[in-house]
Amino acid sequence: GAASRGAARGTGGRDMARGSSTQTSHRLLAYSDALLSIIATVMILPVAHTKIHPDQKLGESVQQLLLAKIAVYLMTFLIVTVAWAAHVRLFQVIELIDDVLALLNLVSLVKISHFSLMASFPDVPFGIFLFSVCAVIIGLIQALIVAYGFYHPHLLNQQIQVSENQNFYKRHILKIILRGPILCFLAAIFSFFFIPLSYVLLGLVIVFPHLSRFITWCKTKIVGERDEEEHGSLETFTFYLSEPLSKERVEAFSDGVYAIVATLLILDICEDNVPDPGEVREKFHDSLLEALSEYGPNYLAYFGSFVTIGLLWFVHHSLFLYLTKATRLMGLLNILSLAFIGGLPLAYQLTSEFAERSHNEIEAIQVSCVITFFASIFQFAIWTTALLHERETLHPFARYGGKEHAFMFAKLALYPCVSLGAFFLTCLLSEFSTAIFHLMQIVIPFAFLALRIFVRIALAILKSVMSFSRRKVVLLEEEEACLSSGETLS
Amino acid sequence: GAASRGAARGTGGRDMARGSSTQTSHRLLAYSDALLSIIATVMILPVAHTKIHPDQKLGESVQQLLLAKIAVYLMTFLIVTVAWAAHVRLFQVIELIDDVLALLNLVSLVKISHFSLMASFPDVPFGIFLFSVCAVIIGLIQALIVAYGFYHPHLLNQQIQVSENQNFYKRHILKIILRGPILCFLAAIFSFFFIPLSYVLLGLVIVFPHLSRFITWCKTKIVGERDEEEHGSLETFTFYLSEPLSKERVEAFSDGVYAIVATLLILDICEDNVPDPGEVREKFHDSLLEALSEYGPNYLAYFGSFVTIGLLWFVHHSLFLYLTKATRLMGLLNILSLAFIGGLPLAYQLTSEFAERSHNEIEAIQVSCVITFFASIFQFAIWTTALLHERETLHPFARYGGKEHAFMFAKLALYPCVSLGAFFLTCLLSEFSTAIFHLMQIVIPFAFLALRIFVRIALAILKSVMSFSRRKVVLLEEEEACLSSGETLS
Repeated sequence: GAASRGAARGTGGRDMARGSSTQTSHRLLAYSDALLSIIATVMILPVAHTKIHPDQKLGESVQQLLLAKIAVYLMTFLIVTVAWAAHVRLFQVIELIDDVLALLNLVSLVKISHFSLMASFPDVPFGIFLFSVCAVIIGLIQALIVAYGFYHPHLLNQQIQVSENQNFYKRHILKIILRGPILCFLAAIFSFFFIPLSYVLLGLVIVFPHLSRFITWCKTKIVGERDEEEHGSLETFTFYLSEPLSKERVEAFSDGVYAIVATLLILDICEDNVPDPGEVREKFHDSLLEALSEYGPNYLAYFGSFVTIGLLWFVHHSLFLYLTKATRLMGLLNILSLAFIGGLPLAYQLTSEFAERSHNEIEAIQVSCVITFFASIFQFAIWTTALLHERETLHPFARYGGKEHAFMFAKLALYPCVSLGAFFLTCLLSEFSTAIFHLMQIVIPFAFLALRIFVRIALAILKSVMSFSRRKVVLLEEEEACLSSGETLS
Repeated sequence: GAASRGAARGTGGRDMARGSSTQTSHRLLAYSDALLSIIATVMILPVAHTKIHPDQKLGESVQQLLLAKIAVYLMTFLIVTVAWAAHVRLFQVIELIDDVLALLNLVSLVKISHFSLMASFPDVPFGIFLFSVCAVIIGLIQALIVAYGFYHPHLLNQQIQVSENQNFYKRHILKIILRGPILCFLAAIFSFFFIPLSYVLLGLVIVFPHLSRFITWCKTKIVGERDEEEHGSLETFTFYLSEPLSKERVEAFSDGVYAIVATLLILDICEDNVPDPGEVREKFHDSLLEALSEYGPNYLAYFGSFVTIGLLWFVHHSLFLYLTKATRLMGLLNILSLAFIGGLPLAYQLTSEFAERSHNEIEAIQVSCVITFFASIFQFAIWTTALLHERETLHPFARYGGKEHAFMFAKLALYPCVSLGAFFLTCLLSEFSTAIFHLMQIVIPFAFLALRIFVRIALAILKSVMSFSRRKVVLLEEEEACLSSGETLS
């Protein structure tokens, strides 16, 4: 990944030196990734900012409202990731950009940013219509970018440039990019007649790529050889297009989500939890210290959530450092993990608003634990998936039995274990649930610092136990050897 | 820049292959840049969200409040950039990271995020005290990172690793990093006695690096040779540390600011300008179309601001593509440009809140024009600075007289000219100020698309004029030659 990108950049440098107006797309793609991840994650805000009175029980109506909003969030998040995936495929084919492409890309980003507006009316036919039309327009802009790229072949990927089947590539990439918008077009039509069908179609946009892949996988498993041949003849054309996701862009998109979640926390604390100068004067007799200590629990919740995001990013960073490439299944798991990461502002709102002063304390803490658990367990799942094909996807020292394997395992297992533990502990000791949760958030960073030492001690113990048992084996063997030599002697 | 980073990554890859637990810092630094730029830019929110009643004249008290808030924004923005600059220097010395450094870095980021809290009480002694103490703690954490790095020399930059003067380097980098915090420590002490002095000290933190550089520059100009020698003996030690800013990190920081400003726009439109389902039912008789058209002008303002940010990013991107390295002066100009970019959410608030329905229409539009003008004129200044040392800082084809020079000039000059034009036009035609402003925002993208054509036409005309005059010269010369040959003949 890094090496090939380096090489690509190298050629870009040479192009620049030739004085052409084309450019490598590196920084443009990084910026697009940042904006796309922001647009996807911002959708959590209507959920997080649902106003619930602290004294009000989480009644059925409020729960249904929250669930409906969460469903809309997940759907929009996943549809934006589909647009992002199309963007990734697109710029695997088009490697150099010129000004027109840069401007077209900006237009498509502006259009994608409209998603967040359109998703506000999930139960009105016209709202769904607007949402779907928005997706169709994005698809058309991306198709326009493809058309422009193939009209100026020097912008294309080297392999496609020299290939004789450019038209095949063009049709193939257009098929991938327009698959989603066509479904959205149907959803737009049906939105006025039968809303559930529209939702089914929009859901299909999300699962279609994975579904089609799963079906081909099943087919090859069941039918076997015959299909393999057919696949083989196609492969010669599409080996590049069916390449796994670009690891670098997966990282950039993830970084964007982590950064924007941290931002949402900063914004929340800046907007709601800073005492007003007037308030300080009247309520706290001009003593800022008193005013700030009033907000203390909120700052603690903020600090805890910020640290949680930071550490989950740290785990993600360590994990992707050990990967050599990202397969499509890993990409899917990563996006699911990110969807839950995007839920962390909700967790922060719940713990800071409800905790310690409402009837919904346990529910709030438990929802936070569940969000943290799923965000981290999907990271663990990425690691497990990588281990299944460790020769292709992992650096040697991270593979099973490698030097860093045990340590990586401990790093990834820490958050799922602790959040699960906190969840069940709050069930048992429901009165101390807030205390348990905050204790967990504060202890974990130290656990990370000491993790290497723990793992080393555990490994040392394991080793000494194993070497002890081995010495036993050796002793036994020697005895046997003595005996056998004695036998041969006798 | 890119090449050396590629090389650094290459060695990182080798380190990884050796199975050590150290890592290259690339992704960590990108993430830090994103967070630091977010923290710096978020400080605009208290300014943008100042509540002013639409019918209220911008009286002196409101103006003073706004000015005070803008001053606080600028100061905090610049102090965060000082922390960022220290961060850049720090990780030029420490090139590889391990888990402890990654965690320490996260702690320093959490601490820097507290700045946004601390800046909310600019007129209370305790508020300034907290702000300064925050800066001191950040400095101490960065010093801890340096100490850790020099304690584990394999993490250091190759050149420093092999050098015999490691201790000198250590003291030098500590001096650079702790300079700011020491001034902040003094500011913290004086905050309880004499607030203006605290502010002078905090201001000194911002200008000190540039001031000291300017003074040495003046000294060498005035005193000349004698100082040069002394400087020379130091240079052998510090040639690496006094290297200009890393271009890649300047780009990453800038991208972060542009992305977060776009985000703030998205957040604003999502929070304030989406009609409530209840409101739609009651006020607009369940007609979403009617409700949305009510908010039409807001969407236009949003669209215009988003496009402005996108295009300013596009200009920045083109500019940095043509640079080969970033000097410190260019870094300073870039940060000033970014500070005004950070003001764009204020411009959006002004144009969407006030425009077309208040007494402050012209003021709002003019402030927006001024912000856009300064953001773009500082970009132009970067280009001018680069041209002064074009052999060192520019790619050959972008230099004066190069193929792309005229085009780049037009690109950079477009926004300053148009915003200045709009400003004076609103003075003349004050009744149509909003219309002029929105027209400007919508026309500019098309101007960018047609820019290359315009420039080509202009160059073609220029060329034909010049070739015509040259032909005249040639003709004259030929005549002269004929005459002189005639003379020699005769």
